[in-house]
Amino acid sequence: MKIEIIAIGNELTSGRILNTTSSFAARNLFEAGYEIYGMNTIGDAPNLIGEALKQALGRADAVLVTGGLGTTDDDLTNEAVSKALNRPTMPNYEILANIRSHLDEITNTPVSQLEKLAWLPSGAEALSPQSRMAGYLLVHDDKPIFFLPGIPSQMRRLLVEQVLPKLSAWQKDHRLTTYQRVFRIFNLPETEVNRRINTLDLSADAHIGYYPVFPEVHLSLTVRDKETNNAERLFKSSCHAITTVLGDAIYGHDGDNMAMVTGRLLGDRGLRLAVAESCTGGLIAAKVTDTPGSSQYFLGGVVAYANEMKSGFLGVAPELIAAHGAVSREVAEAMARGVRTLSGADIGLAVTGIAGPGGGSDDKPVGTVYIAIATAEEQWGTKFLFRGDRQQVRELTALSGLDLVRKYLLQQAGA
Amino acid sequence: MKIEIIAIGNELTSGRILNTTSSFAARNLFEAGYEIYGMNTIGDAPNLIGEALKQALGRADAVLVTGGLGTTDDDLTNEAVSKALNRPTMPNYEILANIRSHLDEITNTPVSQLEKLAWLPSGAEALSPQSRMAGYLLVHDDKPIFFLPGIPSQMRRLLVEQVLPKLSAWQKDHRLTTYQRVFRIFNLPETEVNRRINTLDLSADAHIGYYPVFPEVHLSLTVRDKETNNAERLFKSSCHAITTVLGDAIYGHDGDNMAMVTGRLLGDRGLRLAVAESCTGGLIAAKVTDTPGSSQYFLGGVVAYANEMKSGFLGVAPELIAAHGAVSREVAEAMARGVRTLSGADIGLAVTGIAGPGGGSDDKPVGTVYIAIATAEEQWGTKFLFRGDRQQVRELTALSGLDLVRKYLLQQAGA
Repeated sequence: MKIEIIAIGNELTSGRILNTTSSFAARNLFEAGYEIYGMNTIGDAPNLIGEALKQALGRADAVLVTGGLGTTDDDLTNEAVSKALNRPTMPNYEILANIRSHLDEITNTPVSQLEKLAWLPSGAEALSPQSRMAGYLLVHDDKPIFFLPGIPSQMRRLLVEQVLPKLSAWQKDHRLTTYQRVFRIFNLPETEVNRRINTLDLSADAHIGYYPVFPEVHLSLTVRDKETNNAERLFKSSCHAITTVLGDAIYGHDGDNMAMVTGRLLGDRGLRLAVAESCTGGLIAAKVTDTPGSSQYFLGGVVAYANEMKSGFLGVAPELIAAHGAVSREVAEAMARGVRTLSGADIGLAVTGIAGPGGGSDDKPVGTVYIAIATAEEQWGTKFLFRGDRQQVRELTALSGLDLVRKYLLQQAGA
Repeated sequence: MKIEIIAIGNELTSGRILNTTSSFAARNLFEAGYEIYGMNTIGDAPNLIGEALKQALGRADAVLVTGGLGTTDDDLTNEAVSKALNRPTMPNYEILANIRSHLDEITNTPVSQLEKLAWLPSGAEALSPQSRMAGYLLVHDDKPIFFLPGIPSQMRRLLVEQVLPKLSAWQKDHRLTTYQRVFRIFNLPETEVNRRINTLDLSADAHIGYYPVFPEVHLSLTVRDKETNNAERLFKSSCHAITTVLGDAIYGHDGDNMAMVTGRLLGDRGLRLAVAESCTGGLIAAKVTDTPGSSQYFLGGVVAYANEMKSGFLGVAPELIAAHGAVSREVAEAMARGVRTLSGADIGLAVTGIAGPGGGSDDKPVGTVYIAIATAEEQWGTKFLFRGDRQQVRELTALSGLDLVRKYLLQQAGA
């Protein structure tokens, strides 16, 4: 079943806002076994909306439209749909009742403006009339068209709770069984990943895609077959082949991220981490704490952005900084040691470097970064020379630091 | 001049990767005065690419195509263009020479695969043959078609350095004078922003757009006119009207972000900030240090994720935590005081709260956050009850903390 996705909004076509809704929809629909014909992004103009809608109906089996369903003056989707498909708007009484019963909570928007939400093209079935969310299903020319709000959180919720189940009921027989996995790779260039994969003799039905997602490379494996057993078998053997040739450059898959994977390894071993950050300025700690439950293995850390903080909060001797510079292996190791012993953590991770654009020198150009790890028994530092702008150097440093902890823990398996 | 943007890549239509390149291109082209007809995202299939290209040539004055120019097997753009426009591929000798002269640096990719980069549809003008970046201009039916790599950093660079100047030379007379400003608003709901703007009597030529970009609202003002003087005058008076009714809910405009604006205010006053973070886990420090030059006004801070860290690194009395709980006004104020005095900063900002999904109680549900500020003279805490998931609560907390510092500094004007 081919689905076309249309996103509406001047904020998208002027580049003001990044279109995340189409990507989310595409991913979920693809994983549910549908084929995505394409994604179209257009402005809030009724004629454009009508044209795009009719074109989509002509070439796809189902359509997903997001945006333009709100109450402000530039929300023109319903008007456009009504005209293009010749379906006059009619009041949906369930929505109207819902609006009126909540009026005491809304003091600023005029009632007439809110009630715009209740006027839908004839034949429309509201997707979630009880909630405050706009959205409806229209079956036209025997094809389902889903209209969802452009607001990402609402769109995502309705897609998962309403659209996917309804689509599933609509076309039960036409879906292929899909097995898909995305391997998340760090510290291996795309050309090298490609080269190693090409040494394998993978089946033509095992589709491979390479996606650079700085600073990682993602490799997607997709196996689709009407016969579930064939697909599953091929999927498993392909996974084994891929993980064998890529080794520990693969840090995780699908929804994993580096911090989450490293945290899982720490938690499994009952170890606790603390971080001392200079150039990354809190980015490592923020990544780690993004994962719920990270308090199990993460104590916190120090953002020692100024040199006084390295001495005052981490016990790094000022003479050491004076002798080797704040960006040095010696200071990195002292920071790691300091945060570990002062916090009581099992592992201390420290980074110090020059993120740029200023601060570089011939000796230590922008991108020079030292990353150190301290444990009860030992400590050691690694030197990197990262390429990129400020944000890229910070991102590379944060992920490299976590990756080093990850690899250290994997080596410790059984110890 | 109408421009259509086509982004090619299975990784986009499967939702694996978010399409950021089209948005970037649209924003830059829009700000340069061009009209964006629409943005189309399609898979790596030659027939789809050809169809989209021909359709775009039929309805726009220029086309921008990104993606599919690399060396791997799923890079099919050149083949598709060649077929669709009936332009056989020919070798570009400058690119070939460049590849061969760098062969000693590339040990893994077969030469034949790399040389795929040099075969372009006849008539193509390589945009940056000296660099390693793919990309070319093709004039077909007297319309310019720009082909750029899908890799965001390369695409952005070529768009700015090559495409914009060439487009400018192409259609000098057709561009309108555009004045545009995006006002960035925090802590005011979109309906309230809309209501206040509707109290103004703005000209019909002053186009207003509202874009919720959680947790902010962005309001764009666009004035376009063939007469530069008219546009400039209208733009200025509209800006004044808007900033008057919205007041300090507007924290900045265009490329500003909250941390940058707050940092600017600190720097202007010669003040230095340190932060003590619990639930935000480093996010505030990371946002502040994202801005180059932040070392002028930012010392760093402590991520006191575990309670022991609040006592050990910030001097918060364990009895205080035991008496009021880690998430309390008293502890927030003690954290702010602690990080300020221990670091030597002028202002200490502290946050402690429950980001969720776990950790809530009837007394203190998920989203309960205390934010405190400490200065030499005083300290005070504010209580919030934020709605959202873990990431949203952390983001709201971080921005609210910085916003409070910003508003404090604005009150101090003249002091």
